[in-house]
Amino acid sequence: MENAEKTVKIALLGCGTVGTQVARLLNEQSALLAARAGAKLELIGIAVNNLDAQRDPSIDRTLLTDDPYSLISKADIVIELIGGIEPARTLVRAALSSGASVVTGNKALLATHGPELYDLATQSDVDLYYEAAVAGAVPVVYGLRESLAGDQVNTVMGIMNGTTNFILDAMTTQGMDFDSALKLAQDLGFAEADPSADVDGYDAGAKIAILASLAFHTRVSLDDVKVDGIRAISSDDIASADAAGYVIKLIARAHRHSDEGGETGIEMSVSPTLVAKDHPLASVHGSFNAVLIEAKSADQLMFYGRGAGGAPTASAVLSDVVAAAAKRVIGGHAPREVIYGNLPVLPAAEFSSRYYIKLEVADAVGVLAGLTQRFAAAGVSISSVIQNRADGRSESARSETHSAQNAQITIITHVVRQAAIDHVIEELKESADVIGVTSILKVEEN
Amino acid sequence: MENAEKTVKIALLGCGTVGTQVARLLNEQSALLAARAGAKLELIGIAVNNLDAQRDPSIDRTLLTDDPYSLISKADIVIELIGGIEPARTLVRAALSSGASVVTGNKALLATHGPELYDLATQSDVDLYYEAAVAGAVPVVYGLRESLAGDQVNTVMGIMNGTTNFILDAMTTQGMDFDSALKLAQDLGFAEADPSADVDGYDAGAKIAILASLAFHTRVSLDDVKVDGIRAISSDDIASADAAGYVIKLIARAHRHSDEGGETGIEMSVSPTLVAKDHPLASVHGSFNAVLIEAKSADQLMFYGRGAGGAPTASAVLSDVVAAAAKRVIGGHAPREVIYGNLPVLPAAEFSSRYYIKLEVADAVGVLAGLTQRFAAAGVSISSVIQNRADGRSESARSETHSAQNAQITIITHVVRQAAIDHVIEELKESADVIGVTSILKVEEN
Repeated sequence: MENAEKTVKIALLGCGTVGTQVARLLNEQSALLAARAGAKLELIGIAVNNLDAQRDPSIDRTLLTDDPYSLISKADIVIELIGGIEPARTLVRAALSSGASVVTGNKALLATHGPELYDLATQSDVDLYYEAAVAGAVPVVYGLRESLAGDQVNTVMGIMNGTTNFILDAMTTQGMDFDSALKLAQDLGFAEADPSADVDGYDAGAKIAILASLAFHTRVSLDDVKVDGIRAISSDDIASADAAGYVIKLIARAHRHSDEGGETGIEMSVSPTLVAKDHPLASVHGSFNAVLIEAKSADQLMFYGRGAGGAPTASAVLSDVVAAAAKRVIGGHAPREVIYGNLPVLPAAEFSSRYYIKLEVADAVGVLAGLTQRFAAAGVSISSVIQNRADGRSESARSETHSAQNAQITIITHVVRQAAIDHVIEELKESADVIGVTSILKVEEN
Repeated sequence: MENAEKTVKIALLGCGTVGTQVARLLNEQSALLAARAGAKLELIGIAVNNLDAQRDPSIDRTLLTDDPYSLISKADIVIELIGGIEPARTLVRAALSSGASVVTGNKALLATHGPELYDLATQSDVDLYYEAAVAGAVPVVYGLRESLAGDQVNTVMGIMNGTTNFILDAMTTQGMDFDSALKLAQDLGFAEADPSADVDGYDAGAKIAILASLAFHTRVSLDDVKVDGIRAISSDDIASADAAGYVIKLIARAHRHSDEGGETGIEMSVSPTLVAKDHPLASVHGSFNAVLIEAKSADQLMFYGRGAGGAPTASAVLSDVVAAAAKRVIGGHAPREVIYGNLPVLPAAEFSSRYYIKLEVADAVGVLAGLTQRFAAAGVSISSVIQNRADGRSESARSETHSAQNAQITIITHVVRQAAIDHVIEELKESADVIGVTSILKVEEN
């Protein structure tokens, strides 16, 4: 354990929450990391913007530098934990070009500029690792790159954003509305002052783009993902979902379509979704993440764990560092990007899902029959219909918000094409019997 | 995809449920496997006992041979799916000695003769892969060997035997007793005619021994695992657990103990355990397996999926085959066995757990106070106590089985050493107030 002769030189770019934990663990766990990597891992420097900023006392300040290029030129492995596109992109390119392997946790960079970086890694014959970019400590990149290498993945879906999961949990368990739940998340440090990347779904969108590229061996980017966030979800939606046996989760999903002739394309979305309470994803709470994979032979696999946080994300970074270091010592390389799939990205009209549709209708004889006929005519198969006068609230409560002549109808469909649903909704909106379409959400059953 | 020039020669030993699926998938998915491995994977033969036995029509009978040694001598990769100790052990040794990499799904072999095989692989500079040996398609060997390489694992536990999970599920949801649930499992093909390896816990014991070796970098075997099966679990146990907010699961668990001076040893057990209903393992049903890992930095990780079955297990075998083949082509090798940990295995008296203890006691004033005093004197801290006259059944039902003077007390402790519990139980059995100790089971809270 002590006589590892070789040394692998490591440069750390960025010293925020995760970077600080990585530096601490490289130091504290140096003996066990050396035993596993087969070489001593030496942290030779930490590039930061501000040399004088306050830092965790575990950081050896003599390692700090504001010259990342000089640091990169001396390193065998470069860990990029700066985040964002620039200067991260230029620095990662410099590292790969100089012959260093790169470990990054930068989902935004990979989801927008992944292909140029994968190409550069292949040209330079070095490795690019990014377990920490998706779902924190949850080893789903490994799962798709290596564990399912002998299988065909049909669907990858999951809860990949802890902030929105926390907010939806607070709305569900504490009856909060979106604004109060967001404020609570901000007060507790789970949401940023500008929460858009999380609550509007772009963070989850970047992650599903990275996973879809791996799962379907096809280059896709965040721009290819249909992204809907959770701002429009109301306390009423949460309560109706609960009454029908569902919880609302922000689900990122990538699915490979095929017909008799073979694969036809990929759909990728981030959408608030009704998840049946007995579904494995329904019990994923707070800042935990979970990714469910459906593969042809393996069937259902789920990976669950901490989706964020300094130490959990640092654990994922270090697993990549150990793998990269071991390859420096014993040869070989990480699985290269495999893109033989090259599948088209489908337009949203071609997506398929079950849907939950809530309507306010005139409470008159024959309305329900007329509605179900419209669905049938559009080829949309209905799984269940519930008719309530108002929301099942008492007559007195109801009279405050609803006309006594109105009823609410909740329809859950079988799996249908989005184009068919869009068509039905257009028709319903023009129907004299329909007063309003209150919600349209996707549904996942177990 | 079509122009992979290299060919990796694969020998399959055994053609049962899993072997048949592996042979089928090697053929059906040859193009995608070649793209991922970087070489054509050619199945050069299948060694079987009986050349004339009936086989799935997907099997190319011209590949069958009853001379495994000759087949092994021509192979780059040998897949061993015979099971059991001999002849599997001798054949795997022959394969490793001849310079082939080996992929095996044989948990019994690894849990009893793992070290000699790991040594032989290292000496011969070839790889030994065994993802399929533990938890079917669930990539937990990968998780421990690679994804947690930068972390320190404290606990590995889970549901690793589908047969017992099915039986306990049937007892829980259908109110069956053990014998009826076992018979149902046998009728449906989920349990063998001789169910001992499953219901007595040895199958799960072999799996936790393999995982503990990886997690704690220490050589352990099935003999080091304290194994208790589920034969003694009654419908009453299931009902009382349910009333208290728990489900009973057969939990395999390995835990690293440490004190201020560092690591002190490992405990390994397979035990029927009360699992809190909100615990991630509580909702793992039927033949699904799940493994929960607690690591210092990553915190809680869970891997969930199909624990058995031809296609799911074949998926795990093929992921190993692709990894082994890629290394044949591009160099490098799988992570070698790392055994720097070398921790002692603790005796059962040193184990620690929460406990659930159910007692039948005289229904008299002061009995509860006397009992709790005994626990306190033995240093066993109590988390909760529930006192019922009989089991809360109606007076008439009760009178058939219990004296009207008796009460039932259910005690759940905090985490204590097993020696302390053993001591308290001995004392209770001698106490005049205690009529009987009905159950003693371990407890896992979320």
